[in-house]
Amino acid sequence: MNADRSTVIAERIQQRANEIFPEVVELRREIHRHPELAYEEVRTTALISETLIGFGITPEPPLLETGVVAVIRGGKKAANGKLVALRADIDALPLSESNEHGFCSMEKGKMHACGHDMHTAMLLGAARILVEMKEELEGDVLLVFQPAEEKAPGGAKPLLDAGLFTRFNPSAVFGQHCFPNVQTGKVAMCKGSFMAAADELYFTVTGQGGHASAPHKAADPILAAAHIITAVQHLVSRVVPPHEPAVVSIASIHGGNATNVIPSQVTMSGTMRTMNEEVRALLHHRLRQTVMHTAEALGVTAELEIRNGYPVLYNDPAVTTRAMTLCGEYLGKKNVIESEPLMTAEDFAYYLQACPGTFWQIGTGTPEPVKGNTLHSPTFNPEELALKTGSGLLAYTAIRFLGMP
Amino acid sequence: MNADRSTVIAERIQQRANEIFPEVVELRREIHRHPELAYEEVRTTALISETLIGFGITPEPPLLETGVVAVIRGGKKAANGKLVALRADIDALPLSESNEHGFCSMEKGKMHACGHDMHTAMLLGAARILVEMKEELEGDVLLVFQPAEEKAPGGAKPLLDAGLFTRFNPSAVFGQHCFPNVQTGKVAMCKGSFMAAADELYFTVTGQGGHASAPHKAADPILAAAHIITAVQHLVSRVVPPHEPAVVSIASIHGGNATNVIPSQVTMSGTMRTMNEEVRALLHHRLRQTVMHTAEALGVTAELEIRNGYPVLYNDPAVTTRAMTLCGEYLGKKNVIESEPLMTAEDFAYYLQACPGTFWQIGTGTPEPVKGNTLHSPTFNPEELALKTGSGLLAYTAIRFLGMP
Amino acid sequence: MNADRSTVIAERIQQRANEIFPEVVELRREIHRHPELAYEEVRTTALISETLIGFGITPEPPLLETGVVAVIRGGKKAANGKLVALRADIDALPLSESNEHGFCSMEKGKMHACGHDMHTAMLLGAARILVEMKEELEGDVLLVFQPAEEKAPGGAKPLLDAGLFTRFNPSAVFGQHCFPNVQTGKVAMCKGSFMAAADELYFTVTGQGGHASAPHKAADPILAAAHIITAVQHLVSRVVPPHEPAVVSIASIHGGNATNVIPSQVTMSGTMRTMNEEVRALLHHRLRQTVMHTAEALGVTAELEIRNGYPVLYNDPAVTTRAMTLCGEYLGKKNVIESEPLMTAEDFAYYLQACPGTFWQIGTGTPEPVKGNTLHSPTFNPEELALKTGSGLLAYTAIRFLGMP
Amino acid sequence: MNADRSTVIAERIQQRANEIFPEVVELRREIHRHPELAYEEVRTTALISETLIGFGITPEPPLLETGVVAVIRGGKKAANGKLVALRADIDALPLSESNEHGFCSMEKGKMHACGHDMHTAMLLGAARILVEMKEELEGDVLLVFQPAEEKAPGGAKPLLDAGLFTRFNPSAVFGQHCFPNVQTGKVAMCKGSFMAAADELYFTVTGQGGHASAPHKAADPILAAAHIITAVQHLVSRVVPPHEPAVVSIASIHGGNATNVIPSQVTMSGTMRTMNEEVRALLHHRLRQTVMHTAEALGVTAELEIRNGYPVLYNDPAVTTRAMTLCGEYLGKKNVIESEPLMTAEDFAYYLQACPGTFWQIGTGTPEPVKGNTLHSPTFNPEELALKTGSGLLAYTAIRFLGMP
Repeated sequence: MNADRSTVIAERIQQRANEIFPEVVELRREIHRHPELAYEEVRTTALISETLIGFGITPEPPLLETGVVAVIRGGKKAANGKLVALRADIDALPLSESNEHGFCSMEKGKMHACGHDMHTAMLLGAARILVEMKEELEGDVLLVFQPAEEKAPGGAKPLLDAGLFTRFNPSAVFGQHCFPNVQTGKVAMCKGSFMAAADELYFTVTGQGGHASAPHKAADPILAAAHIITAVQHLVSRVVPPHEPAVVSIASIHGGNATNVIPSQVTMSGTMRTMNEEVRALLHHRLRQTVMHTAEALGVTAELEIRNGYPVLYNDPAVTTRAMTLCGEYLGKKNVIESEPLMTAEDFAYYLQACPGTFWQIGTGTPEPVKGNTLHSPTFNPEELALKTGSGLLAYTAIRFLGMP
Repeated sequence: MNADRSTVIAERIQQRANEIFPEVVELRREIHRHPELAYEEVRTTALISETLIGFGITPEPPLLETGVVAVIRGGKKAANGKLVALRADIDALPLSESNEHGFCSMEKGKMHACGHDMHTAMLLGAARILVEMKEELEGDVLLVFQPAEEKAPGGAKPLLDAGLFTRFNPSAVFGQHCFPNVQTGKVAMCKGSFMAAADELYFTVTGQGGHASAPHKAADPILAAAHIITAVQHLVSRVVPPHEPAVVSIASIHGGNATNVIPSQVTMSGTMRTMNEEVRALLHHRLRQTVMHTAEALGVTAELEIRNGYPVLYNDPAVTTRAMTLCGEYLGKKNVIESEPLMTAEDFAYYLQACPGTFWQIGTGTPEPVKGNTLHSPTFNPEELALKTGSGLLAYTAIRFLGMP
Repeated sequence: MNADRSTVIAERIQQRANEIFPEVVELRREIHRHPELAYEEVRTTALISETLIGFGITPEPPLLETGVVAVIRGGKKAANGKLVALRADIDALPLSESNEHGFCSMEKGKMHACGHDMHTAMLLGAARILVEMKEELEGDVLLVFQPAEEKAPGGAKPLLDAGLFTRFNPSAVFGQHCFPNVQTGKVAMCKGSFMAAADELYFTVTGQGGHASAPHKAADPILAAAHIITAVQHLVSRVVPPHEPAVVSIASIHGGNATNVIPSQVTMSGTMRTMNEEVRALLHHRLRQTVMHTAEALGVTAELEIRNGYPVLYNDPAVTTRAMTLCGEYLGKKNVIESEPLMTAEDFAYYLQACPGTFWQIGTGTPEPVKGNTLHSPTFNPEELALKTGSGLLAYTAIRFLGMP
Repeated sequence: MNADRSTVIAERIQQRANEIFPEVVELRREIHRHPELAYEEVRTTALISETLIGFGITPEPPLLETGVVAVIRGGKKAANGKLVALRADIDALPLSESNEHGFCSMEKGKMHACGHDMHTAMLLGAARILVEMKEELEGDVLLVFQPAEEKAPGGAKPLLDAGLFTRFNPSAVFGQHCFPNVQTGKVAMCKGSFMAAADELYFTVTGQGGHASAPHKAADPILAAAHIITAVQHLVSRVVPPHEPAVVSIASIHGGNATNVIPSQVTMSGTMRTMNEEVRALLHHRLRQTVMHTAEALGVTAELEIRNGYPVLYNDPAVTTRAMTLCGEYLGKKNVIESEPLMTAEDFAYYLQACPGTFWQIGTGTPEPVKGNTLHSPTFNPEELALKTGSGLLAYTAIRFLGMP
């Protein structure tokens, strides 16, 4: 495809994204008003299905109880049946909204505070654009409206386990996430390891309770927990290679309920974040060693449960390079920026284990940063103009990627 | 008084203690069935008053809302009006009893698990013996049934503030406490510092909350708390002179409630025990220094509230030596043992700041130790034979001390 | 320049590098036999000068007491007088060689254990090739044989302070370093921050000495040092962003010389490595805060001296991208690999602060790694075939970079 | 013996102590001028022997190479052959004297800085007094001039192993030590555990050395040592009963000799002091546990050697009570004070394991404390008037103790 042709396509998509923008906004607000938690996205699933059907796209038979999968069949499909997958996550967070706009969550204790309403609406917008251009598509587009990204073990793995990719066999998979630190109109991309493996850590330190005036008759689990916490620091500072991002955070600690009674137990929990499976395995091993032996050194015992979370999200370098070029064509080169790796996690990582692809940050920020406008905050409030960018970008990336030699 | 005379007195008291034992047991069980918490000892107060009146002793006008004070006037009072004070504490603990004997607490969540029912019954028994012998008393005996020993600031200080000792001006004050580690029939005594000053410690460590994957954007109060706990150890191991007993226990810690959110605050509480006011002051100062600077070293801030508890309980060496002799006369020398200092606290310490005296442990133990038979336990179950020992011993000590040259 | 022309040049240089290889080996061995420490490189300086004169290159008047600077004037110099600088460092290490080959160091306690003999010989080889092709050079080449890389403050800064770059005004500067972990025949390159800022840390912890049986009369600097060391870990684990490489190592500690005397002082030293000047400044600040307050928390005082070392070595991304292409042309694409950032330091960083350029690792490794064949080891023994690669690569990069549009 | 008789004896001894004082001073100064280290006390041994012979006392055949043992046979010896042992230690310290008086050490690097010259002279003075009164002695007096108190394993144990006490079978053993914190003319005594068991601790922490910029390739023994030091604190603060004096001091630490090289090993040494063999055994066990497991927690290994030193010095309570009475008779009651337990150690402890006895502090202090006048200091300078006190007190205690019913 030559430069002129790509320019024509970009301009057409930009025009359509512009025209359908009000409808996409309305879809997003409708979803925002009715947030549903992981695996409870019944209303949202119905809305997506009806909307797709309205676009002339028939959803596939469901693979999970919630969520929607659908395919747009391209008119110029090559012999090898190329297919590109686009994914949006659809679940909300257990959080009460504190915004004051006209489309606030109507469900107390639930809110789309992570932008999945935006993601869903953008993919619906892209679907509408793509279905209109389906005769020109040189392959198929798989639309994945995935449930339960927010709650381990997530919805991606069950979808894959249910055969999603073996059945549709995509050549590439793309996803995007709202990011208030990136200006609206821009995207930020990162080659290679982009988001972290996030494992949950649960510690139990068991000593021997007793009166706080007689520590020699007790075995103090609070002191042992303190030594564990300080010893754990060396995993990041001395064990992990300096250029490997890694975090071990102990984020909660609880023990005792009186000033004068040494408790018999302290519980702690935390998270471990790594960008590399080798480092992850090393840290699992060394964390256990540090915790167990520190406990013994202090005359108590410890248990450590590590619950494996989403794996490292690895953006295929070649696909990402290609996607950066395509996004540059669509948004202008200056609007495609490179992102640092993030230590947050995403179950999009599972798709990328099964298929090359890339996951990018779509800017929803405003020129003047607004305090409280952060992900997972009750005042998260993404710029809706991003819906226009995101709808068009997904459509353009899909159509152009299918057209690659 | 010559040895023969003292033997006669001891034998008379032993006989009476024996005879009234069933009534003392009944009094104790009645109190045990109806435990009342600090400052709520209305029923107990009434029982004590009525019992004293039944013995022919008229209680003094009350100094506090609960508790009873009464005087037995001696018939042989010397010109200098010598007076000895005997004290029992009368309040119960907020604890549900787990024993199965026939006189268990009838008040859910309340129990005489620290033996104050025993102390009260023993002092009533002593009162009965002493009033019968009042013509021979070479001075007066002040009976102090004190409320609220278990709950800071205690009942002793308010009684003293209300003028108890300025009004009655005792030459000596005696008290006793049940102790299951000492065999029934024995007492354990200690000259000098015997029980600890106990100060309550309340720590607040304040950092900056944030996502646990981005510790660099937060200031971790859990890590700082851990460093505080480990640094605090050096106060006892390096700052306090080796021969000075001291304990600093951090007995509770709470912060955070998710695996992936660094909390903004951690709270801790604990106790500091010292046997010497100089060490106490030193530790207050150095603890504050350790906590504040460790927090700053870790990039957070800390607050420390020290709530002063009961002071060091100091048994006057001369009075204690005298009491040991008297107890030896009454119980036999081999039944008076020396006790190590204890790190627990008692508001009897206030009386001893105002007047020389001594506080002893009265054995309530059994030859075979019973698991769970410990103070402040729901299965505390003192040997009732100790009531006989304790009644007589108080009476003998008082009558003999008054008779001292 | 079209692809054919670049191939012709590459082949000509490869042929000459091959032909002069024995002479370059001989130069390297001569330098290896006579290692000279920083600022003492008199013999080495003379050898370089004579060799250059033998090639028909007249050294510039010296800027420092040792080292050589010379220019090869190109015959096709453009109007803008483009100049490329190539740098080799020439000093040895204070180390006794343990190898057994035939050209070992003849100076006890001195050895070229960091490959500067290789660097020097390779630049001499490149000079010979370039001077032969000078009529075709589309600009000038500055040869910098720099003294004293191994010893802070290094030789690069004095050379620049003496006007090296203001006088010759290079468009780009290139340097290379032997690397036994990279196979001979390959180069490893890295865009952006490649080597660390390395600051030296000197700690003095001062307490109060005393007999070890009476810690309460002393202020223990060993315990305080221990708390400082453990607290310092949080700088890397919690303060530095996870994706920013950083190291804080305390590498020596000394205090006390008896089992029973608490010393009054402990000294420690270490190094801080950062890849980013912002992180470096942050760590300087926070390290000081951690050290000072931890000392105060433990009742002692501390001093911290931070001696700034070489800055972050930042490879200009555009020049590096260009150099990777050129190296790929010369060595074959598969022989140009990407390197992780290194936490070691190099005073080449100063040149890169003054001028865009890049510093690469030239492979001196063997297919089977040899134990002990590491930099700064007495058994460092680089594969001499690398001399061929390095001579030609420097020459090719210079000639082609000058020919860039 | 009635009070009058004891007064007569005391006055006679005081008078003789007064009269021989100049000679005792001269003996002390002679010994002070010629200090000899442990097991090298040849000159001192000769001086003692000659002096005793001059007094008419024939030394026993030597049990060790240095030191003197002699017996004064009493004229009124009872049938049971009672014998009292008096001991002085005779060795000096490896220290250069800094005093400026007229009888300074003439041996560079050697000094009687622990008062053994005083102890020896006082025992010689006592011997002179006792031999003059031998007809009145109701038993024998064993004079023990012991070598090598300052250097483990000490001289007491070899003397006992050589049969000292099995041969002479003393009823009681007495010793004294200069103490500048007690005023001259006074003695300080302590019943029960008085001086500590002192064990030497030697730690080796072995990791893996490496470049300080790559901690992940090393195993940092300095960090592990730091964690060991902080963890060790809990032994005293949490494991030992609060009323049990105990000290664990790490008094030296050495590792590394460059800012940029992580060493492979750190060595530490220290001392453990306990007043109770049970606590000592507990701490040996728990120290080992703490050290080994902390090392493993940090990924390194540790070795701990505990060299047992002198045992707890336990003053027999009955003998000490008796000695306090006797000292009170001789010095006046107000000049006999009670001492806190000390955490220093003495090989006199071995005698007390074999025989009841007591060890007291003889005051050598001045009303105004002199800076630097402390034991083991190059400016130790005891008040010589103490020689008069000490000579007489030893003689009086011996003669009176033999006379006890």
